[in-house]
Amino acid sequence: MAEIVDIDDPDDPRLDDFRDLNSSDRRPDLPEGKGLVIAEGVLVAQRMLASRFEPISFLGVERRRGELEADLVATDAPFYRTSAEVMAAVVGFHLNRGVLAAAQRPPALDLFDVIDGARTVAVLEGVNDHENIGSIFRNAAGLGADAVLFGDRTADPLYRRAVRVSMGHVLRIPFARVPEWPRGLELLRKEGFQTIALTPDPKAPLLAEAMTAKRVALLLGAEGPGLAEHTMRSCDVRARIPMAPGTDSLNVATAAAMAFYERVRIAE
Amino acid sequence: MAEIVDIDDPDDPRLDDFRDLNSSDRRPDLPEGKGLVIAEGVLVAQRMLASRFEPISFLGVERRRGELEADLVATDAPFYRTSAEVMAAVVGFHLNRGVLAAAQRPPALDLFDVIDGARTVAVLEGVNDHENIGSIFRNAAGLGADAVLFGDRTADPLYRRAVRVSMGHVLRIPFARVPEWPRGLELLRKEGFQTIALTPDPKAPLLAEAMTAKRVALLLGAEGPGLAEHTMRSCDVRARIPMAPGTDSLNVATAAAMAFYERVRIAE
Repeated sequence: MAEIVDIDDPDDPRLDDFRDLNSSDRRPDLPEGKGLVIAEGVLVAQRMLASRFEPISFLGVERRRGELEADLVATDAPFYRTSAEVMAAVVGFHLNRGVLAAAQRPPALDLFDVIDGARTVAVLEGVNDHENIGSIFRNAAGLGADAVLFGDRTADPLYRRAVRVSMGHVLRIPFARVPEWPRGLELLRKEGFQTIALTPDPKAPLLAEAMTAKRVALLLGAEGPGLAEHTMRSCDVRARIPMAPGTDSLNVATAAAMAFYERVRIAE
Repeated sequence: MAEIVDIDDPDDPRLDDFRDLNSSDRRPDLPEGKGLVIAEGVLVAQRMLASRFEPISFLGVERRRGELEADLVATDAPFYRTSAEVMAAVVGFHLNRGVLAAAQRPPALDLFDVIDGARTVAVLEGVNDHENIGSIFRNAAGLGADAVLFGDRTADPLYRRAVRVSMGHVLRIPFARVPEWPRGLELLRKEGFQTIALTPDPKAPLLAEAMTAKRVALLLGAEGPGLAEHTMRSCDVRARIPMAPGTDSLNVATAAAMAFYERVRIAE
C-alpha cells in the first residue's frame, strides 16, 4: 500500500524525480539523463503499475489519488500528495492530468524473449519522433501486434511524450533492439519471420498479397525518407500501402496501423 | 507575381494578419475572430495557392520565398520579406517553417456540390480536436477518400493547427456541414450513400462485410464517447474495426484511415 505523504514545499528534495520535466528529462536514455520513466495521468499510471516498470514514487492531487486508490494497494512507493499549483511549480508547467508516476528503467529485454511466440512485429528504422513511436505502440496494442523492434536512428520509446501518446502501451508491448542493423534482420528470418519492407512504391505488390507467412516482421521507415535502400534489400519482400496518386506518404503510425489491420483482417 | 516588400519593423500594421497567432487566431471561425486561414511552411503555402483559398499576403524569410518563387507567379498577394527574428516577434513564437500565407475564408461549400460524384465520404460527430481533424483530412487525401462532412460538435477544420497537421489537405479535400444533425443524414441516403456507423462494439459486423454499397458515408465519433446512440440509430448499418480485447479505442483518425483503406482495398 502506497504511503501518502503530504508535501507543500515545491523545493522538497523528495520531489526531485519530477522536477523540471521539460528540460531535465529531455534525454532520459542518455548516460547523463536521470534514467526515469514518467507516467502521466491515472490511466497510464495504472498501466505502469501493471507492467514491468515498477513505480518508485507518485506525485499528484488528492482527487487523482482517490481514482488510483485500488491500484495503489499493490505498491510500496510513496504517493506525494500536493496541490495542482505545487505540482506545476515542480514539473515546470501546468499538468492537467493531475498525477505522475516515476519508475526506474529496468534492463532492456532480450530480442529472443520479445519475439518468442510473436506472430506480428513492427520493426522501425529512422523513426525519431516520439509521438509517432507512441502512436505505433498504441496501434500495436489496439490491433493485436505483439512487439516492436528498433533498428537504427530511432527515438527513445520510454521518453515521457512517447509514453503519454502510447496511452501507456510502451509499458506493456515488449520491445527490443535489433543488433547490427540491418544484418540482424537475419535473426528474425531464422526464427521464421517473413521480413516485409513497407513502401509507397506503386510497383511493389499490395500488402495483402505480400504477407504470406504465419510470422511477419513489418519494417517501417520515417515519413519522407522511408527505409534505407540497404535495409529494403535486406528484406524478403516489399509491400505497398495503397495510396492516392500525388499525395504525401501517410504518417508512419498510420501505415503501421494499416499493416496491423491487414494482419487482423486475414486472421478473422 | 507577388510583390516583394521588405519589412524590418515587427509593429508594421501590414503584418497584422500574422500577429499573435496563438491568441488572436484561436477561434477564427467565430464572428469575433479574424476569419483568416493561415498556411505554415512551403508545402502548405503551395497547396493554398493551388486551392480555392486565395492568399491575401505572405510573411517569410528570403530562403523560403526562393523555394516558393515559381508558385508565387500565380498570385498578386504581397510577400512581406523579413528575418526569422521579426517573424517570431510578429507571430509570438518561433516558427521553424519560415513562411506563412494568409487567406480569407471563402463561403462554405454546398453539401450537394461536395458529395457530387463522391464515392467515399467521412462524416464526423463530436470530433473536437484540431489534430485529429487535420489527420483525418491527410488520411483522406492519402487513401483517396473524396470529402469530409461535419455533424454536431466538431472543431473548425480551418484552424491553423488543423491546416498544418493535414499537410494542407483541408484546403484541397472538400468539406461541408450536414444540416439538422443527425436527421440530415437522410440527404446522403437519398443520394445513394450507405451510412455506416463505425464502432468498437464486438457484436457489430466487420467493416469489410458491412460496406456493400458503391457510395459509402463512414460515420466517426470522438475517441471515448464514440457516436451518439441516436446517431448510430440514424445509420443504415454499424461496422466494427477489429480491435484487440481490453484495449482503448483507436485514435479516430486511425480508425478513419482503416475504413478508407478498406475501401481502396476492395477497389483494387
